[in-house]
Amino acid sequence: MMQTLTVDLGDRSYPIHIGPDLLRQAGLLVPHLQQPRVAIVTNTTVAPLYLSTLQQALEQAGVQVLPVVLPDGEVYKTWESLNLIFDALLQHRCERKTTLIALGGGVIGDLTGFAAACYLRGVPFIQIPTTLLAQVDSSVGGKTGINHPLGKNMIGAFYQPRVVLADTATLNTLPDRELSAGLAEVIKYGLIRDAAFFAWLEQNMTRLVERDPAALAEAIAVSCRNKAEVVAADEKESGQRALLNLGHTFGHAIEAGMGYGNWLHGEAVAAGTMLAARLSLALGWLTAADVQRIRTLFVQAGLPVVSPDLGVDSYMDMMGLDKKVEGGKIRFILLQGIGKGVISGDVPPDVLKQVLARAALDD
Amino acid sequence: MMQTLTVDLGDRSYPIHIGPDLLRQAGLLVPHLQQPRVAIVTNTTVAPLYLSTLQQALEQAGVQVLPVVLPDGEVYKTWESLNLIFDALLQHRCERKTTLIALGGGVIGDLTGFAAACYLRGVPFIQIPTTLLAQVDSSVGGKTGINHPLGKNMIGAFYQPRVVLADTATLNTLPDRELSAGLAEVIKYGLIRDAAFFAWLEQNMTRLVERDPAALAEAIAVSCRNKAEVVAADEKESGQRALLNLGHTFGHAIEAGMGYGNWLHGEAVAAGTMLAARLSLALGWLTAADVQRIRTLFVQAGLPVVSPDLGVDSYMDMMGLDKKVEGGKIRFILLQGIGKGVISGDVPPDVLKQVLARAALDD
Repeated sequence: MMQTLTVDLGDRSYPIHIGPDLLRQAGLLVPHLQQPRVAIVTNTTVAPLYLSTLQQALEQAGVQVLPVVLPDGEVYKTWESLNLIFDALLQHRCERKTTLIALGGGVIGDLTGFAAACYLRGVPFIQIPTTLLAQVDSSVGGKTGINHPLGKNMIGAFYQPRVVLADTATLNTLPDRELSAGLAEVIKYGLIRDAAFFAWLEQNMTRLVERDPAALAEAIAVSCRNKAEVVAADEKESGQRALLNLGHTFGHAIEAGMGYGNWLHGEAVAAGTMLAARLSLALGWLTAADVQRIRTLFVQAGLPVVSPDLGVDSYMDMMGLDKKVEGGKIRFILLQGIGKGVISGDVPPDVLKQVLARAALDD
Repeated sequence: MMQTLTVDLGDRSYPIHIGPDLLRQAGLLVPHLQQPRVAIVTNTTVAPLYLSTLQQALEQAGVQVLPVVLPDGEVYKTWESLNLIFDALLQHRCERKTTLIALGGGVIGDLTGFAAACYLRGVPFIQIPTTLLAQVDSSVGGKTGINHPLGKNMIGAFYQPRVVLADTATLNTLPDRELSAGLAEVIKYGLIRDAAFFAWLEQNMTRLVERDPAALAEAIAVSCRNKAEVVAADEKESGQRALLNLGHTFGHAIEAGMGYGNWLHGEAVAAGTMLAARLSLALGWLTAADVQRIRTLFVQAGLPVVSPDLGVDSYMDMMGLDKKVEGGKIRFILLQGIGKGVISGDVPPDVLKQVLARAALDD
């Protein structure tokens, strides 16, 4: 039942195991530990569901466990939460060989990974993502970090885990809205580089929304394989890795404009991807029929396809702070067809503004 | 007049230029910039002395400069200061290709390097150390970070600069006490791996204390060469690099015990090195005559050779938090002779406690 992929990064390569009930299999983790001691970082939502299962499995394997339970939510992806982790690690005198395990969604993964990158200038790190979004996106690729009042993910590090466990059974407790948010990133892989996967998603979206275990495992595996291939080719995001940001420049502006935590990341990415698709259409790169196919799939996945009416100036301002700015110019991830993402720094401002002016219209 | 060394770290190798008035030579920096834009991070002590010289040289070379002036002192090596840097970078929309330049001592170097490691998950970084300590120690090797209330340098990253300028003219404004603190690290290189350099220092300490420019340049160059060799062989401190921590396990306890900022780092290292020498003597590894040679050189350099009377329990407690703890056991850097540092995890606790009990005695 378990599938295993490898993210190929030379001496920082690591395996991703995908399957049901992996939380109970301490044998998947123990070979990656440098000493029989870990800190499990999780949050108040995930802890009652899965912490004791994981903790007991590890303790039965002879591993000493320090649990660190943070408040739940994107609004807590801050220095203050990071410091709660550091406080616990220092109070319990965790050492350079103590492994940090992230048990939770993307926020827990980003916080824990960044804590691992910085604590004593770097300790080992394991990801156990418990949301679909984290399983298909944030647990693969080594991006870690926190938000700053002036921008999302502005402070962080590239830091790779030693192993990732994507336990598909944890998705049974995921709220519908968060399942949909994860599907936004799944659809993204189809859009930027895998037309066959996009077509498979069109055929299987109903099964995914109904949480068919086999369909979910397949979607996770194909998504991780796509992301792993992109990351392996471009670990530090100097080139093609930027394709993974399809919908994210707009999406970050939506999240910031609506206040972090009000739109889920995947929801903002879905609406942002529709803006990227419409911009691609306006540039003559994508057909109206393809834009409709994308819209239909997002709607089937339970995702928003209309952006908030923040106003053109507000969008422009918030996109200007994005990390993808280069020499004062915004690079956009656009589509030249389904399965063919491209990076473009040459979007005429008037075309961009026309699309943003109609952001809140479903046309 | 200018000497250049290279720290050999594969694709992260970088040059160290040593000589007078390098601040004015923008041509040493410009080839390392990815865009004609830098942020110079400095402090309220260094800014009035050297900021305008550096800023004007860069501006005349067509480089846009954002100065960021922080308060001066080890007590400001905190998250709050780091955030002042992030605030300035974000407010001015600095991008991934903007280079951060550290202009100042070790605190500025550590803060700026860590900011560069984290900002947008990593931007380029240049070191211009203006104290002897920073020139011979903290500007070489890529260690960056901040203090935590529970320990010094607990949060940080290994992050290499693109180039280091050690401008010896900046030492003319250095207070005597800080010059001496820098000499503690200079002496350390002789002790751990370069007996000939130690002997040279015994002959030339008077010239160094009197700030003879040629003697200082020679001491800096030999120190940097020694450190560069150690770092090149062991970038992430998994083995021999730990030798550079001679005196530091004790020294960190002294700094923490006396309150950060009251003892200069180099002063604590000097007193801590005397404890390491006495511990080596107690273990039968070092002769009493060699301990006296070390003591004499520290005294000539204007450094303390007696530690504060913190009490054995307090020393033990504060050393237990040190990063060099492994499996609950403290690894010490000791001496098996002048020029021969060794790493030992096998110090009997009672011998250690006897030495600590006599820490405040000059015997």
